[in-house]
Amino acid sequence: MEENRTILSYCPSIKVVDATIRDGGLCNDFRFSDEWVEKLYETNVAAGVDYMEFGYKADKDIFDESKFGKWKFCKDDDIRAIVGEKKEGLKIACMADVGRCNYKRDIIARKDSPIDLYRIATYINTIPAAIAMAEHCKLLGYETSINLMAVSTAKDRDVDLALELLGQSCVDGIYVVDSYGSIYPEDLRRLVAKYMETAKKYDKFIGIHAHNNQQLAFANTIEATALGVDYLDATMLGMGRGAGNCSMELLLGFLKNPKYNIAPVLKFVEKYVLPLREAGVKWGYDVQYALTGRLNRHPGAAIDFTKENRKDYADFYQELLDRF
Amino acid sequence: MEENRTILSYCPSIKVVDATIRDGGLCNDFRFSDEWVEKLYETNVAAGVDYMEFGYKADKDIFDESKFGKWKFCKDDDIRAIVGEKKEGLKIACMADVGRCNYKRDIIARKDSPIDLYRIATYINTIPAAIAMAEHCKLLGYETSINLMAVSTAKDRDVDLALELLGQSCVDGIYVVDSYGSIYPEDLRRLVAKYMETAKKYDKFIGIHAHNNQQLAFANTIEATALGVDYLDATMLGMGRGAGNCSMELLLGFLKNPKYNIAPVLKFVEKYVLPLREAGVKWGYDVQYALTGRLNRHPGAAIDFTKENRKDYADFYQELLDRF
Repeated sequence: MEENRTILSYCPSIKVVDATIRDGGLCNDFRFSDEWVEKLYETNVAAGVDYMEFGYKADKDIFDESKFGKWKFCKDDDIRAIVGEKKEGLKIACMADVGRCNYKRDIIARKDSPIDLYRIATYINTIPAAIAMAEHCKLLGYETSINLMAVSTAKDRDVDLALELLGQSCVDGIYVVDSYGSIYPEDLRRLVAKYMETAKKYDKFIGIHAHNNQQLAFANTIEATALGVDYLDATMLGMGRGAGNCSMELLLGFLKNPKYNIAPVLKFVEKYVLPLREAGVKWGYDVQYALTGRLNRHPGAAIDFTKENRKDYADFYQELLDRF
Repeated sequence: MEENRTILSYCPSIKVVDATIRDGGLCNDFRFSDEWVEKLYETNVAAGVDYMEFGYKADKDIFDESKFGKWKFCKDDDIRAIVGEKKEGLKIACMADVGRCNYKRDIIARKDSPIDLYRIATYINTIPAAIAMAEHCKLLGYETSINLMAVSTAKDRDVDLALELLGQSCVDGIYVVDSYGSIYPEDLRRLVAKYMETAKKYDKFIGIHAHNNQQLAFANTIEATALGVDYLDATMLGMGRGAGNCSMELLLGFLKNPKYNIAPVLKFVEKYVLPLREAGVKWGYDVQYALTGRLNRHPGAAIDFTKENRKDYADFYQELLDRF
């Protein structure tokens, strides 16, 4: 919702989405213990977070279940085992990738599922397939969003066409996704203004999912908020692929709605997130991510660089330039 | 200089100021080896950086010389031993704190010194003393700036009065300093607009020195740039007190002036900055800094928390709230 947002007021329409299991799961192949996920769920309830994303609804015919933790597949029963009787206030989200989800088989009616919101992740060239998935979910009673990835590499005209298609679709919301952490606040504001036009014309919500390659995930998230973006993704201590995401502790520190409570987040970070990092799970800002972000590239090469414990940033930069 | 700044153009009036020795020196009591400082100097020359700040001109009658590395005192001869015949293009800056510098004794004529720019650091209540120092430096031929620290805690009316005093003074430039890393981009733009009014009225340059408590140092720096701020402080890998500063590798990745060259910075970070970190010198974002930043507090308590290797963020937060 767009309104006159000031630094001291708050907008009840803002929703905080914890994406720790989903984006953080990309750092450890979704191998979180049940206790970890239970504590995260309790933390989100106590912190007043609005949605908790449990992972991907990946197709087990495509991905080998033995090679990933259960949250890659996000079975309804696995979620139910964590959440029991769902706590009022915290809704459950799940991500479904176009082409990687057998949605007709695996997504059942909302009334029989603990999931509330399906977030359909798509690149710009698979939007019709994403809309078909959203329609399926919508008919089954779910809230839906389409998360348009890697928009920083798309042409303006294609983004306009994409937004028009999404606007006309049944989807409830559209996400600005800075997959490569390449978008500067100045560009972000222009992009968000475009999404907000669609939001106004077609009555959709707009969300933002930012990456921290250039230490801009939090800045871009709060800038988007000021322009009317309502669904804000964050993760505990920024845990997420590569440079990670907007940090929950920063976001809850910024938001003024008294329903949000930072203290449980601080405890969870100490007791559960730091031990993952100490055990060797890697994420967060480093120079290699700044370089792929600056060049508007997929972070894959930077993630490899990290895994190989390389530190030769200058050589890495030349390798990136060689692949232009 | 204010002009129509776009994301692809560049402004020749922008100056990059490397503050690694000065702000980074606060992390290791200024104990850098001569080789380290020489390589940093060479790096800044090769990278096209405009100014390199060598440290503080601290009064040895106040601070015990045996307890700090030489860059706390920044003697002209020590600088000369590093820079030899100064390279064209890279100017030398030095910070002088109001009340901690015997400027009448220690600051000699520019023609006899390797230093080009004195940056006078002051709180708002010692502005007259800062102006007296700036006048001394100006008469001796130096470029001068006054860096108004902790402005986030000052009242609007006091900032207006301060800017009027600084505008009428002989100083060449005025710095927006986010000492506590507490300023959000929305506030920063309002603050910068105020400084830019003074800049226009009195023909001063405006600079920005940001801290990364809330991962906003780079975002705030580039936002300020878009509004006409010309002097941009950055440090190698963000090395600086507490959460550190705007990272040089991010800033040079953003600026479009072809005179800037990121490759030497990447090499220096690998060969010289990472080893400091591995040797135990601490700086950079962590949750405790987000909390002091959010509360607009001096980072001292967070620095202590870091030194004590504490991780009980939730308890720390309660301690901070107790001291309101």
